Amino acid sequence: MSSMKLQTLKGFRDFLPGQAKKRQYVVDTLKKVFELYGFEVLETPALEYEEVLLGKYGDEGDKLMYRFKDRGLRKVALKYDQTVPLARVVAQYELPTPFKRYQIQPVWRAENPQKGRFREFLQCDIDTVGLASPYADAEIVVCTIKALESLGFKDFKVLINDRTVFAGMSPADIRIIDKLKKIGQEKVLEELSDKSLLEKIESQKLTKDLEVIFMALEDLGVEKNKYEFLPTLARGLDYYTGMIFEVEIAGYEAGSVVGGGRYDNLIGMFSGKQVPATGCAFGFDRILEAMQKLGLFPKDLTTTKVLVTVFSSELASDSIQLANKLRDAKVNTELWLEGDTKLDKQLKYADQKEIPYVVIIGPDEVKNNTVTLKNMQTKEQQSFSQETLLKKFTD
Amino acid sequence: MSSMKLQTLKGFRDFLPGQAKKRQYVVDTLKKVFELYGFEVLETPALEYEEVLLGKYGDEGDKLMYRFKDRGLRKVALKYDQTVPLARVVAQYELPTPFKRYQIQPVWRAENPQKGRFREFLQCDIDTVGLASPYADAEIVVCTIKALESLGFKDFKVLINDRTVFAGMSPADIRIIDKLKKIGQEKVLEELSDKSLLEKIESQKLTKDLEVIFMALEDLGVEKNKYEFLPTLARGLDYYTGMIFEVEIAGYEAGSVVGGGRYDNLIGMFSGKQVPATGCAFGFDRILEAMQKLGLFPKDLTTTKVLVTVFSSELASDSIQLANKLRDAKVNTELWLEGDTKLDKQLKYADQKEIPYVVIIGPDEVKNNTVTLKNMQTKEQQSFSQETLLKKFTD
Repeated sequence: MSSMKLQTLKGFRDFLPGQAKKRQYVVDTLKKVFELYGFEVLETPALEYEEVLLGKYGDEGDKLMYRFKDRGLRKVALKYDQTVPLARVVAQYELPTPFKRYQIQPVWRAENPQKGRFREFLQCDIDTVGLASPYADAEIVVCTIKALESLGFKDFKVLINDRTVFAGMSPADIRIIDKLKKIGQEKVLEELSDKSLLEKIESQKLTKDLEVIFMALEDLGVEKNKYEFLPTLARGLDYYTGMIFEVEIAGYEAGSVVGGGRYDNLIGMFSGKQVPATGCAFGFDRILEAMQKLGLFPKDLTTTKVLVTVFSSELASDSIQLANKLRDAKVNTELWLEGDTKLDKQLKYADQKEIPYVVIIGPDEVKNNTVTLKNMQTKEQQSFSQETLLKKFTD
Repeated sequence: MSSMKLQTLKGFRDFLPGQAKKRQYVVDTLKKVFELYGFEVLETPALEYEEVLLGKYGDEGDKLMYRFKDRGLRKVALKYDQTVPLARVVAQYELPTPFKRYQIQPVWRAENPQKGRFREFLQCDIDTVGLASPYADAEIVVCTIKALESLGFKDFKVLINDRTVFAGMSPADIRIIDKLKKIGQEKVLEELSDKSLLEKIESQKLTKDLEVIFMALEDLGVEKNKYEFLPTLARGLDYYTGMIFEVEIAGYEAGSVVGGGRYDNLIGMFSGKQVPATGCAFGFDRILEAMQKLGLFPKDLTTTKVLVTVFSSELASDSIQLANKLRDAKVNTELWLEGDTKLDKQLKYADQKEIPYVVIIGPDEVKNNTVTLKNMQTKEQQSFSQETLLKKFTD
């Protein structure tokens, strides 16, 4: 037992409360915006029949998928993304059209561990299935913008293109042009099969669909400085069939934090019909990293607002009564749960857990019918009546 | 492709929006109460090294665990519960004491599929680690009661016992007595190694710890009819060392919906030290089933409050503008995303999705500078100014 390595698997992570709270804040904020735009929550299982998932992600995907035989010798696989399960759900059930869903669940990929790449990570998608309308594309972009704004991002840009501008071009050339930002113009020209392709792409005008989408973005009240047409944007994946977009955040260079577009040939894979679809994926870990870097997390993210200390066993009841009142008033309250602990130790605990306030009820307080409130950041102490204290926390 | 069975694995479930929303409502409600009592969120990975999990759940547990070798030939296993990962976390990191955490994540067990048994299900735990104090036990019980009340349960009872009342009794006899409710007194007496054991147990008085816990429950303001001492309660698991409890809900006979207790010998399994701990697990699927049966889900659980229809392409802008305003006012709004769809089809869609209200802006409405609001339940229609409509939704 003692020789056991106590650790998570490489690429897998524990989230202790400090970090888990930040993740929860981001999830909750995104959910609210998704629901504001009429997307509804969907959940699918972690494990699926291998044959449902296999062959959909290319050789690389199949290689990175966690696959095994279960005890019934069924070939099963851990979810690699949420799009193929979405396609299964759309084929399996009779759903109203359009089907607008969001899905925020972990997925698993046996990636080579490297900075920012994990083997278990939260996938965070919105998709509108069943509509060919460019308004559906525009709504995905608007919802993305509102979601990022809700998280506190201000200086970001949605780069938009239409995959059809690359019509007739080889996948190799498309991939080279897509790297323009990363490797620079000189290198792109060097690698292209035909140097004129870059100029040809860069001089593209808005496609008809993009014209409608850009008009819809205006109608939908999006500021013009939030998006721009970028004809060299290709996005890696081959499955896009129309509008594509990525989001870049000023001051965060690790890559785009949201990406998506229209993919009309994928959702129908199980039914054999063409089912139009458009959507995007939020890069959850990148968003957290960007928020951390830009200082966007609220300061009072600590879920527990106050620790009610216990001065001594004899005075425990007074502390318990107050904790009851605070909780009845919906104030997140931790009550010290031992009768005789030095006050210093209790204060240190509040410090460690970053609980912003501590309440003390000692003999003086009981005599004067007051409570003492300590602000753990400023170290300031003040005495109040219980009523004033409750008012202070609930106002 | 066409021969593929489009289905989830047996014991695994899709949650379409209607059901997923209910699950989300329960999770959110529980989280709020857990945080009200100072429990903080923890997340651990789905996959762990097999050696971390193996041997902790007995032979039966090992048999039900999803185990396999990953591509690096590491022996890995899907999380079987959240208690062993908690023990790993406590041994691996330096955490403040007490460590009060809640954890709501899926776990996997290759159970024989049967009514109410799933192979993937949400585990929902609160635990206080590091405190031997009976106040910690009492708080778990109080938090459980408040959580159930928050979900709308009224007529339920916490059955409380102390595992030490069974001291000296064989595990076989304990297991028989634990089945008293299920198989009846006659059968229990028949199966016991010594018939007098039942009377001996039934005549037990409160242990010293239970006396303190019952006093603490009173201090914490719990109504006396919410809990009772039941000396024949044993709970199946062998790992409890002190107070144990289960919750029964009147009108729901499928079994207890919450169960827990003190288990002082488990959390230290990795460090070799004794680490006192107390906690409980909420039976998520049973709670949902009970809420469904008792009609406790709020009627307005639909996340989308209103569908803004589009009368025609020409009038689309008017609808879009209104959808913008509703969303700015934080009203969850779906906007119809195609230009020329018959109004009937749009209304039918709202019906299918149980969206409670529909807004119509046709030529008459534009002329009169009004909007028409249709209540989809009563089928009543009324016309308002846009300002009145917004006020109606945000009041």
